Amino acid sequence: MPFWYDETWEGKTRYGCLVRETLYSEKSEFQQIEILDTAHYGPVLVLDGIFMTSAREEHFYHEMLVQPAMAVAPRVANVLIIGGGDGGTAREVLRHPEVERVTLVEIDAKVIEASKRFLPMIGTAWDDPRLELIVGDGIAYVGREDLQLFDVILLDGCDPVGPSAGLFDLAFYQSCAARLAGDGVFATQTESPILLREVFLDIQRTLRQAFGRVTPYFGPAPLYASDQWSWTICSAGVDPLAIHEERAARVEPAMKYYNREIHRAAFALSQDLKRALDD
Amino acid sequence: MPFWYDETWEGKTRYGCLVRETLYSEKSEFQQIEILDTAHYGPVLVLDGIFMTSAREEHFYHEMLVQPAMAVAPRVANVLIIGGGDGGTAREVLRHPEVERVTLVEIDAKVIEASKRFLPMIGTAWDDPRLELIVGDGIAYVGREDLQLFDVILLDGCDPVGPSAGLFDLAFYQSCAARLAGDGVFATQTESPILLREVFLDIQRTLRQAFGRVTPYFGPAPLYASDQWSWTICSAGVDPLAIHEERAARVEPAMKYYNREIHRAAFALSQDLKRALDD
Repeated sequence: MPFWYDETWEGKTRYGCLVRETLYSEKSEFQQIEILDTAHYGPVLVLDGIFMTSAREEHFYHEMLVQPAMAVAPRVANVLIIGGGDGGTAREVLRHPEVERVTLVEIDAKVIEASKRFLPMIGTAWDDPRLELIVGDGIAYVGREDLQLFDVILLDGCDPVGPSAGLFDLAFYQSCAARLAGDGVFATQTESPILLREVFLDIQRTLRQAFGRVTPYFGPAPLYASDQWSWTICSAGVDPLAIHEERAARVEPAMKYYNREIHRAAFALSQDLKRALDD
Repeated sequence: MPFWYDETWEGKTRYGCLVRETLYSEKSEFQQIEILDTAHYGPVLVLDGIFMTSAREEHFYHEMLVQPAMAVAPRVANVLIIGGGDGGTAREVLRHPEVERVTLVEIDAKVIEASKRFLPMIGTAWDDPRLELIVGDGIAYVGREDLQLFDVILLDGCDPVGPSAGLFDLAFYQSCAARLAGDGVFATQTESPILLREVFLDIQRTLRQAFGRVTPYFGPAPLYASDQWSWTICSAGVDPLAIHEERAARVEPAMKYYNREIHRAAFALSQDLKRALDD
């Protein structure tokens, strides 16, 4: 029997999907993992009751987390992904032939297992020989002082609750900054600037303490809270609009949302956010 | 007792608001009208079960329907609004001191009555002497051959069902084009380009048969289906990016979302839509 599965926000609004079948449901050491076959989105990954990604609409989130950073980083040979257990972020990075090595550090082996089995349309690059998979704590990983430097670091975590809470701390952002090559680029999802406006602004303030240049950008993410999503590019001083035209153009034929025009447009700030961020 | 009120899309997804109280519920000659006091959005206008506008988030929709057209129209003295019974569109138009006359043609007197009573924070310009209110059928109105020409025509209707269905017909768009001054500008909401992608593309194709230059643009509309909304500027040939800087700058202090940077960015096309619209 089909049933409704709702994600409720502070008991005030809810967004629901009609589920045809529960494909997977297991409690890992870290969280409740579910994969639901929904009527609209196809298979959807749910962690602790929150919709994470879907077969139908994952490209908005993954293209927008990855491609802007890849388009403006001076070098992209050596990339670190923290989180990203569904494989979509790695897939987007590995589209670039200049990438030599991707290290993906995901805390929950069961998310990877379930995604490989039920979301193969998202993680299409698991077998790429440039990808090294580490099951472990991303916070401890970037804290290692013997660690190499990265050209690009991508943070693909959940909301600031549960196993992902530490991924929004200043200390963690500072570790990421320390692991970046001098002109390296860090990008992360930074929640909804409308429904979660205060959370979004808090994250911006924290990021500004860890990085020299912090610039949010915006786009749709249909599976998430009903409005708009944000990501943020951080670095010592790389211009987030200085696109390497050739590198960006090379991946555009494979894109469904991102292109150079979208890249430039995504950084426009609403009047409300312009006022809030100038304070 | 608070209760959930859900808008369901094709039986596959739903978006719900917790309602503290039903403020108004009446069946007019045209539709079921409800005004619900919701926990998140404050008062919300609902027509035939579809969320229309809310005290909290109406500015995204109204600013984006009105201000881009007002920023690029060569003249804005004489403006026609079709629909817009909540008063938000008229309020945005009347911010401009160059506006001499606004004619608002709303088919349902009860929408105006209920909005005046329960949504006074949206319709703040009802008493402006430049506003002329006509209760009547917008389709018949623009079909009148003795009608004056307008500098700007704004179509603020519902989805292409119920009393608004005729507002998506070629014949109606052709009447609007005929009622525009030579370099006048027409703007309308054109549904979600993601959830209602095929509807959006159909509307674009129809508009292209009626106007010389048709350009969609995009932004968030939190109360609507969970992703992104679109509006479209149409004219004989006015450049939708040729902003009258002074006119746009004058209203920016009153804006919550729109500004000139957002205006330019809103026209960026995703890879998917670029491919679909070039066909």
